[in-house]
Amino acid sequence: MNAPTDAAHLLPQVRLRPVPQEFLQALEARFGAQYSASQAVREQHGRDEGSLQAPAPSAVVFAESTQDVADAVRLASQYEVPVIPYGAGSSLEGHLLAIQGGISIDVSRMNRILSVNADDLTVTVQPGITRKQLNEAIKDTGLFFPIDPGADASIGGMSSTRASGTNAVRYGTMRENVLALEVVTASGEVIRTGTRAKKSAAGYDLTRLLVGSEGTLGIFTEVTVRLYPLPEAVSAAICSFPSIEAAVRTVIQTIQLGVPIARVELIDANSVRMVNAHSKLTLREEPLLLMEFHGSPAGVQEQAETVQELAKEWGGQSFEWATTPEERTRLWTARHNAYFAAVQSRPGCRAISTDTCVPISRLADALLDSVKEADDSGIPYFLVGHVGDGNFHFGYLIDPNIPEERVKAEALNHKLVERTIQLGGTCTGEHGIGVHKMGFLLEETGAGAVDMMRTIKQALDPKNILNPGKIFAQ
Amino acid sequence: MNAPTDAAHLLPQVRLRPVPQEFLQALEARFGAQYSASQAVREQHGRDEGSLQAPAPSAVVFAESTQDVADAVRLASQYEVPVIPYGAGSSLEGHLLAIQGGISIDVSRMNRILSVNADDLTVTVQPGITRKQLNEAIKDTGLFFPIDPGADASIGGMSSTRASGTNAVRYGTMRENVLALEVVTASGEVIRTGTRAKKSAAGYDLTRLLVGSEGTLGIFTEVTVRLYPLPEAVSAAICSFPSIEAAVRTVIQTIQLGVPIARVELIDANSVRMVNAHSKLTLREEPLLLMEFHGSPAGVQEQAETVQELAKEWGGQSFEWATTPEERTRLWTARHNAYFAAVQSRPGCRAISTDTCVPISRLADALLDSVKEADDSGIPYFLVGHVGDGNFHFGYLIDPNIPEERVKAEALNHKLVERTIQLGGTCTGEHGIGVHKMGFLLEETGAGAVDMMRTIKQALDPKNILNPGKIFAQ
Repeated sequence: MNAPTDAAHLLPQVRLRPVPQEFLQALEARFGAQYSASQAVREQHGRDEGSLQAPAPSAVVFAESTQDVADAVRLASQYEVPVIPYGAGSSLEGHLLAIQGGISIDVSRMNRILSVNADDLTVTVQPGITRKQLNEAIKDTGLFFPIDPGADASIGGMSSTRASGTNAVRYGTMRENVLALEVVTASGEVIRTGTRAKKSAAGYDLTRLLVGSEGTLGIFTEVTVRLYPLPEAVSAAICSFPSIEAAVRTVIQTIQLGVPIARVELIDANSVRMVNAHSKLTLREEPLLLMEFHGSPAGVQEQAETVQELAKEWGGQSFEWATTPEERTRLWTARHNAYFAAVQSRPGCRAISTDTCVPISRLADALLDSVKEADDSGIPYFLVGHVGDGNFHFGYLIDPNIPEERVKAEALNHKLVERTIQLGGTCTGEHGIGVHKMGFLLEETGAGAVDMMRTIKQALDPKNILNPGKIFAQ
Repeated sequence: MNAPTDAAHLLPQVRLRPVPQEFLQALEARFGAQYSASQAVREQHGRDEGSLQAPAPSAVVFAESTQDVADAVRLASQYEVPVIPYGAGSSLEGHLLAIQGGISIDVSRMNRILSVNADDLTVTVQPGITRKQLNEAIKDTGLFFPIDPGADASIGGMSSTRASGTNAVRYGTMRENVLALEVVTASGEVIRTGTRAKKSAAGYDLTRLLVGSEGTLGIFTEVTVRLYPLPEAVSAAICSFPSIEAAVRTVIQTIQLGVPIARVELIDANSVRMVNAHSKLTLREEPLLLMEFHGSPAGVQEQAETVQELAKEWGGQSFEWATTPEERTRLWTARHNAYFAAVQSRPGCRAISTDTCVPISRLADALLDSVKEADDSGIPYFLVGHVGDGNFHFGYLIDPNIPEERVKAEALNHKLVERTIQLGGTCTGEHGIGVHKMGFLLEETGAGAVDMMRTIKQALDPKNILNPGKIFAQ
């Protein structure tokens, strides 16, 4: 591939739309202390954890109720100004960038639990609550919410990007776990989708359409999600392997056998090194699988024995068990911090994260050639993966001041995505499209499906004010 | 409730649109022997298994390829004629009724398996294959497709109505199990949605929007679904209870404990009587639960013991086990035939089927008052339910020639739906809206959400030719 060495074409296309002073004055009049146009606040709300940048939004509204969100959107609609919902700021693909200008609606103060229905295994929350806050608040119910992206993201944001994480192999993603929504539409109207029933055939599945729509079709103001009984028994294990391939082959067979493993994470030797440094651990600096089994005591033992046998065949070192909750928490915290550990390993760097997901049988095919390409590139990188789902992330640690590094990293990413699409997979398993992967979406799904998305967007948001310029060109 | 005794307002509002002769001639010229305008064929394609009727479509095209479907839709678009996709004809809510006239596109000849990817637990099929044909064809792979509505429905139809069935409590519904689609849009264009990857965050979830859209947004020409390893051990059991309440309370506790039961069906005493007569069985004519456990031998035993203890507390008679595959098949066949057994129990009757689904803790509240109301009504009825999901069906067996019976049955249905909505549930767990439940959808979800559905429909099908008049008024 003859990649251009100029990285400008890889940066977001900024096209600022007018934000009338009259609009900002009306916002300030309505929201008072909940309104801010200070530079620090605006800048904080105009970026995410990804590698891309754009000018900050013109102002930030700190919504404290559905009515606040509806009023802000109604004003924005009147003046045709873009609005970008903001939760925890942890998205990775430029979702929060104000590339067409406008304002940010911060919902992080809307972080209440509205109702716990423990008997039905559901909870209804405001969108700004984070996944850790939610689990902390329900810990006495004997239930938990399993979806765990790396960051302590907000439930609203996780719904918007169709997030998943380490538990998805067993418990599904936000797609499977959001039951109902309250949504502010582009005109500022408040609608409800879904119910607390576990299944439904009642008309179009608006809930599933909105989950993953990245703030482009509506702003979530209530989210009802499924909860799960805390498993009777949990055991976690680490197993090192002589190669990435050996680890991956073990995982493929585990899934094909139907073992209901709760978590199975690949961590490459680079990541182990970074995690050891960041989290003061002494893990063997070899590719490893971090696993967790949930169930009855007998069930957990049965699952673990099956996987242990498979691992042995592929040369896995004997399992090390984490039996106490504290040990388990330490291991999983280390895993969740892998991204931050990696970014800290190269001061000043930004991570360009890949997010491909393939059918399980193609996992080795998708991964191994890309490892070789990454090794050959000379760009520092780490590799972690929710490999039980066929999903993994290379993080290319680029110096944002060296355009050639961005070009090289994006070329690696592009090659990986092309390979993934050929293997029947997707360019993004859980991070979403944002502004970063718009080209990949088109390659993956074809113009027909993207046109259908655009037609829906134009119909539901004719003034194109809801997080415009994300997912596809608008 | 002072219900009117005139049933006319309960019948579908027929508003026939013109079907130009020129269009029919063009269709016949294109499709030759694959085209039929014979009365018998038209009438067969203008009805479903529900209780409603409408004039037959003007012609039927027997599509044999995606190209056939696309060509038929393109012609229909040119002449603005409605098209109604037809699979096995087993829907229940008037989905197939040509209430605005038009033609039927029968896809039952498109019944090939396109690719079995056993290593990935997926299969791609044409839409006309039925669930039994699919399972027969893959039986040597060690995998199975679990979704089983009562009828031997087509995979395309099941996708269109977001069907589920007895296994959904463990394996989910078509919502969770359709991974990707090939779809002919309203303009006759062919698009693809989704991939074979298990999860994805790639833009709007068009697959989930289309699943359950009842033929109103596109016609499916390929469907990729998930498969599951045949469980190592299976055991089925029947348990009789002194009351419906006792049976239901057992189920509620089973689900709340997180027991991964594969099937748990309630069959009331009326249904048992009808099933005994139809399937030559001698089941105790009391409310019973029909259960199945999937897993490892130890896992299955553990699950069964837990449920047995719960059942005992509620006065359940000792479990009778069906240990051989033949015995299990006989029991489940009897369950699947309950609908047909019931309809045959009153010659000439039609069944009006309810389909509410509530959060599991509200199952008894939703069910017991409705049982009393049905008993008091004097209308013969049966009650069966996928109660592990909170979903159950009353079938009111009405004489279609006695309008008062339809009025009475619909009043019972309406009361049940009102109660369900108050309890946080949905008017349809798996049958869909069709023409029959349009009023209920509006009550359940409110005008805002239905307006959003209508906006999407109008944007994607501006000529309103795809199964018009279904789900909401168009």
